[in-house]
Amino acid sequence: MADFTQRLKPADPQCTQILADERARSSIDTEQLARHLLTDEFLERQKRILRVLAREPVFSKQNQLNLGHPERYQLGLARAKTVTRLATKHGWDEQDYNMASYLIDEMGPYALQLLLFKTSIREQGSDAQKEHWLPKVDNWEIIGAYCQTELGHGSNVKGLECVATWDPRTREFEIHSPTLTASKWWCGSLGRTANHAVVVAQLHAPDPKTNLYKSYGPHQFIVQVRDMKTFEPLPKITIGDIGPKYGYAAMDNGYMLFDHLRVPSSALLSRYARFNAELGIPNTASEKPAMVYGSLTYVRAQIVMHARLVLARACTVAVRYLSIRHQFPDRDAKGDAPEQAVLNYPTVQIRILPLLATVFALHYTGAAMESLYWQTRASIEQKGDFSRLGEMHASSSGLKSLCTTLVADGIETCRRAMGGHGFGGDSGMVALNNEYLSKPTVEGDNWMITQQTATYLIKRMSEAIKYPGTPAQEPIDVQFKEFLRARDVVPVTFDIFECDEDLVKAFQHRAAYLSYQLYQARVVECRPWTSLMISLHRASKAHSESLLVSNFYNAVTAASSTSSSPDGALDRDTASLLGVLFRLFALFTLDASALEFLTSNAAQVSQLRHTTRRIEALMVQVRPHAVRLVDAWSIPDYLLASSLGRYDGDVYNDLFRRAHVVNPLNRTTFNPDWTTDEIIKGEGPEAARRRIRHLALGEADERTVGETRARL
Amino acid sequence: MADFTQRLKPADPQCTQILADERARSSIDTEQLARHLLTDEFLERQKRILRVLAREPVFSKQNQLNLGHPERYQLGLARAKTVTRLATKHGWDEQDYNMASYLIDEMGPYALQLLLFKTSIREQGSDAQKEHWLPKVDNWEIIGAYCQTELGHGSNVKGLECVATWDPRTREFEIHSPTLTASKWWCGSLGRTANHAVVVAQLHAPDPKTNLYKSYGPHQFIVQVRDMKTFEPLPKITIGDIGPKYGYAAMDNGYMLFDHLRVPSSALLSRYARFNAELGIPNTASEKPAMVYGSLTYVRAQIVMHARLVLARACTVAVRYLSIRHQFPDRDAKGDAPEQAVLNYPTVQIRILPLLATVFALHYTGAAMESLYWQTRASIEQKGDFSRLGEMHASSSGLKSLCTTLVADGIETCRRAMGGHGFGGDSGMVALNNEYLSKPTVEGDNWMITQQTATYLIKRMSEAIKYPGTPAQEPIDVQFKEFLRARDVVPVTFDIFECDEDLVKAFQHRAAYLSYQLYQARVVECRPWTSLMISLHRASKAHSESLLVSNFYNAVTAASSTSSSPDGALDRDTASLLGVLFRLFALFTLDASALEFLTSNAAQVSQLRHTTRRIEALMVQVRPHAVRLVDAWSIPDYLLASSLGRYDGDVYNDLFRRAHVVNPLNRTTFNPDWTTDEIIKGEGPEAARRRIRHLALGEADERTVGETRARL
Repeated sequence: MADFTQRLKPADPQCTQILADERARSSIDTEQLARHLLTDEFLERQKRILRVLAREPVFSKQNQLNLGHPERYQLGLARAKTVTRLATKHGWDEQDYNMASYLIDEMGPYALQLLLFKTSIREQGSDAQKEHWLPKVDNWEIIGAYCQTELGHGSNVKGLECVATWDPRTREFEIHSPTLTASKWWCGSLGRTANHAVVVAQLHAPDPKTNLYKSYGPHQFIVQVRDMKTFEPLPKITIGDIGPKYGYAAMDNGYMLFDHLRVPSSALLSRYARFNAELGIPNTASEKPAMVYGSLTYVRAQIVMHARLVLARACTVAVRYLSIRHQFPDRDAKGDAPEQAVLNYPTVQIRILPLLATVFALHYTGAAMESLYWQTRASIEQKGDFSRLGEMHASSSGLKSLCTTLVADGIETCRRAMGGHGFGGDSGMVALNNEYLSKPTVEGDNWMITQQTATYLIKRMSEAIKYPGTPAQEPIDVQFKEFLRARDVVPVTFDIFECDEDLVKAFQHRAAYLSYQLYQARVVECRPWTSLMISLHRASKAHSESLLVSNFYNAVTAASSTSSSPDGALDRDTASLLGVLFRLFALFTLDASALEFLTSNAAQVSQLRHTTRRIEALMVQVRPHAVRLVDAWSIPDYLLASSLGRYDGDVYNDLFRRAHVVNPLNRTTFNPDWTTDEIIKGEGPEAARRRIRHLALGEADERTVGETRARL
Repeated sequence: MADFTQRLKPADPQCTQILADERARSSIDTEQLARHLLTDEFLERQKRILRVLAREPVFSKQNQLNLGHPERYQLGLARAKTVTRLATKHGWDEQDYNMASYLIDEMGPYALQLLLFKTSIREQGSDAQKEHWLPKVDNWEIIGAYCQTELGHGSNVKGLECVATWDPRTREFEIHSPTLTASKWWCGSLGRTANHAVVVAQLHAPDPKTNLYKSYGPHQFIVQVRDMKTFEPLPKITIGDIGPKYGYAAMDNGYMLFDHLRVPSSALLSRYARFNAELGIPNTASEKPAMVYGSLTYVRAQIVMHARLVLARACTVAVRYLSIRHQFPDRDAKGDAPEQAVLNYPTVQIRILPLLATVFALHYTGAAMESLYWQTRASIEQKGDFSRLGEMHASSSGLKSLCTTLVADGIETCRRAMGGHGFGGDSGMVALNNEYLSKPTVEGDNWMITQQTATYLIKRMSEAIKYPGTPAQEPIDVQFKEFLRARDVVPVTFDIFECDEDLVKAFQHRAAYLSYQLYQARVVECRPWTSLMISLHRASKAHSESLLVSNFYNAVTAASSTSSSPDGALDRDTASLLGVLFRLFALFTLDASALEFLTSNAAQVSQLRHTTRRIEALMVQVRPHAVRLVDAWSIPDYLLASSLGRYDGDVYNDLFRRAHVVNPLNRTTFNPDWTTDEIIKGEGPEAARRRIRHLALGEADERTVGETRARL
């Protein structure tokens, strides 16, 4: 039968024309803004790597949402191998390799080699250990996993149950899992792939004074876990994949238990070890691990910089599609009015445009964190000055928590705003959402690590109160001293609508107020820590929002004075639009915690009554530029993997093509008659029964079926 | 190798003992509360159906997260057939059948037969049509889909592009898709299964006066779409599955286009049709479609009742697991203190316990909506009194929006609170979350339908102002009149902490205030509708929250007076705990919109400063009963499909068993060496390349590969 659908086109107006018109309506120079945000180097690299990937069918994303975890892992392994070969062939450096991973957008079986395995050896290994292991890692001679979390413990590293016991006679460690909850769990690349692993275990060794065994706390050991030829786990080690999870279908997150496994003394990564396995005695001369905190900050700065691109991606899809999607004529329009773009509804704008502003807020704070990291590192290396480590660590904890929450929630807000098609796989939002949902938990749970930020805030507030005469040592001290002075002047008034600097100060004032409340409760009234947890979290959030707002403000101010913008100059219109985005982000954020601004006296009810109207007015200013603003983030169609977010706007043709041409389910005819067991037409009932049984139970044997029945 | 892991058990304290201790700590009578909430009938049915399902391996859920969409559809079809056979064998009624679907927890290929296909015929068909079609539906002779939404239109039904043109000569309709965007889209059961469909199309027919064709608007047509023997689509019809989406992997959501398909005049479901296909003229004598709105209310009441069980499920998993999960000793504890239950952290309580209270809030409002529906229906049928239809429709729109948002967000809040294991497939949260995310969009988009509620609020406020002397006709009139009187008394003060009735009144006052503001803006100042959209949404939310709070309050009051509780009596302790849950829900909800309560003068800053502390105190009261409160919702382990949420609490053994024994990926050994193409050990590189290519591209041919390349 001839396919009459080939003659059909979408109803007018044509989507591609709508997007062209949107772009024509704004004079923002997209390329200039792209260079400002991403640098020429990034944009060149993205183009170059994309060209290489485009030639390999294995990187096609068109079928991957059809695959279950076992198949997706296999595809992931094939992709990982191909990328590694391409890297060798084209002489890619680490940034090229990371760009390829970013574009393929898959946490695959090799993904933790550089991220965690190599970093551990580089940071925790002695010089000799680094010399031995790093070349093997770099040329992929070995494939590694990082094994810290266990079935029973995640956040509380001190509570890990896996033990490495020192045997002074053989000068070996015996690694052992004394309980089921000591099983390593969640370790990426471990389940089916890695042949080596860095294992975190409690180091037990005799106390030289008493000769009784004592714990030296968690240490890292490098261990071979699989045979290099048979690929089977080595004796005394049990390993497996933990099974399907939210996202990361291509990744073999694994478990591992040890049955009295013996490893040589050299397995202990010894740079900062509190036990000296060469001498068999406690270590007194190990290096100071201060820089480890520094690099944690760097990791968290990367999380924020990554978060901005993830949210940019969600906003790109949402802004383009919601400009194209027309639904309902205006209710007040007379006669036969045309339907209007969904992005024109204020109820859609209020969900999407503040998020678009958030992308820029994240960008400038990520950049500020990176710059702080390099400055601090230089101070330490050149002058031995560790003084800003505390500030850096505290800010990075609070920001990691706030930014990953903003983005995880933001993706879903974008998705929901897109209605029915947002729920479809061709929205490109399924994997984006499911995978990013891990971020509020990993690298420090978002509700736990804010305690570190709050601890810092209480400490600085105590100092400011105790030594009012001492000059400020850190930026937060200036704010705290200003707050303590201002407390005597009632009411403080910030002109949050007309003065950007006041808007920033209102955020600082509120953060200082909440810090002061905490100081009162904890230091003065000695209230239990646990009872303060909600307030601790809120203070950390307030401080982090204050950082986002002030970094954004500083960047806008710098961009407005033509000469001083470091990342590429911006014309006046663009700089001014950035100012609008700053105000939108700040007022939207303020409005969401209005009560805190009110009780801290950083804003008045008479102002807060008008915030929504101000936000609406700012959104009207952003709306005409929305498409060009997302264009500037330069997310390629291949990465978007979205019919709705295509650069050319050809939404409906693409949605239809993917369903009608690509979807493999449409190549099979099924038998829906309930009176027969046959499922695929012509297969026969007996074969169907066998196959369905296999689908329902996996490869499980009868024993498992019995257990399953018992559980029902 | 002997598996040494079989000898291991989790570290102490044992999880099962923890949960037993939790239950022992509370004296709440779980079974009594279960009967109160769910009725004996429901509980008996759940047990009975569960026993039948447990015997069939096809219903095992242990492997389903490993399956991609095509395989999951096949398993879903097999399950649908099996359920249908069981229903016949055991003589199940519709409620038994629905219970089976609820427990299997899968929107499968037959799922819309009763939900939408049968309902359409029953509600839109003439008596003759019902007599013809309903028996075929009931005995599954035909399998149906409901086809309304299109590629280009969802919410705006008036904008549908599929056309049914009346041909007076042949007395047939010609159904046609003039554009690609006219393609039916998202229609459940259509993609690979249904052989019949109810199709919504614009009815075009000649105007008798002018003889020119005009549109009569959207109408429903029943059409055969597949051959009953070959299972192939009939000529002039193109059908397929739209591909993978968020959840619903077992459902074949489909698309369909018509190429001038001719159907007889009897295809038009004619009960309310505005065109008479027998006479070929406009219909003047069709029935009043008022009851259609009534049944929409019923559908939405069901959505709320369903929502409570979904949220109860998320809370069950979260409360049980977070009681069992111990992490970190108390920071102020001296010496070697034990780790404490995560549910003891206030930062965890504030996320979980208000949601647990929300489950009860949803319950009592769902029950109130059902009861309102039956009362209204009786009034219409017995007295022809349609007067409460408007109120019912408005409330049900706002409540659908609010409740599905609360639950969709609440599931994710529960999941995130569970940290790492919450991200795993064995949490049981993956499908729950992904599938429920459709609910804020379907049956009226949550941000669109609140306009209907707001329209009603503006109308009632206008009436209250215009006719101050008229007695109140509807409950909202009483509140509005009270608000208008109270405006003159400044300040209004509600004792939100000490007086439950005042707490309810504060919600009513705020809703009335926002309605009054809308009245001012729209009726007095004539501001454009679009510019008010955010305020419309907020007013609807405020009204719906006020309904949740007042229905909860009324139920608690009734339960406290022993004799008057209709759904099973409660002892005094339980009734009193319900009161605590009511206050927790109300104050948590109030706190989240504190600024609105403040600007509407329903609460004062001096009160709002203390809300968090009040909430914390209420949570301390709820905490000891949390496990028993979730137990009362009686969600069976089979439905939870969660290691974390098991009734017996045996979390870690179960997590390990599922990974180590069940996970099929662990039965294959892979070759991770990047220098070879071999993926599965022993498979050989050539076979691997072919298989991987197939995985990457689906069944696609070279042409598609070319297209894919072009798109990169």
